[in-house]
Amino acid sequence: MEKVNLAEKLAQFDDHWSPKVAGQLDDYEIKLVKLQGDFVWHKHDDADEMFMVVDGSMDIAFRHKTITLNTGEFLVVPKGVEHKPYAEHACSAMLFERKGVINTGDAEEGDLTRRQLERI
Amino acid sequence: MEKVNLAEKLAQFDDHWSPKVAGQLDDYEIKLVKLQGDFVWHKHDDADEMFMVVDGSMDIAFRHKTITLNTGEFLVVPKGVEHKPYAEHACSAMLFERKGVINTGDAEEGDLTRRQLERI
Repeated sequence: MEKVNLAEKLAQFDDHWSPKVAGQLDDYEIKLVKLQGDFVWHKHDDADEMFMVVDGSMDIAFRHKTITLNTGEFLVVPKGVEHKPYAEHACSAMLFERKGVINTGDAEEGDLTRRQLERI
Repeated sequence: MEKVNLAEKLAQFDDHWSPKVAGQLDDYEIKLVKLQGDFVWHKHDDADEMFMVVDGSMDIAFRHKTITLNTGEFLVVPKGVEHKPYAEHACSAMLFERKGVINTGDAEEGDLTRRQLERI
């Protein structure tokens, strides 16, 4: 049982769109990720997904609107809702979602898909 | 679907040890709480519990050690582990735990027990 310092963990990596597992709670994982540029449109049919911005700002595009998250703000994207994360500048975020949820959801598997996540 | 600004939500209340529900993800809840002084020793037999400090610092006492959490740090207290949160000065934290988990766990129900949580 060890505490996690978000800034220290985030200083350990620089790659974008590649979530790292920083903690586990029941069957859920607390992940840290750095974002910049465009992700892909996708949805998670069976899982809600929380995005909380730790440093910077990011957009989450939906089919009919876009929500901008700044540092200290979070959004829960409900299961089944198509979304596309985007960050103009480098942004660090904490994710909370059920273990096993694949980052690209129902989108065709591609370069951004991460199935095995590093633990930090 | 609305984003949550932690600082704005925390500005809406001042009472201590009374978690408010700020978001829901599957069967889990994201709660915000202000702490000061001593809580009670307790454990949650069936649920892990995450404490993340948003502003200030807090201690979580265990039977054989104490962990201090500062702003930007989190700890997952595993199910079944006795703990006692404590904060010398006012501290704001985000909690993540399964819906229905009672804040005082297996401790005798008392003044600090909260069964119905306000949504903010």
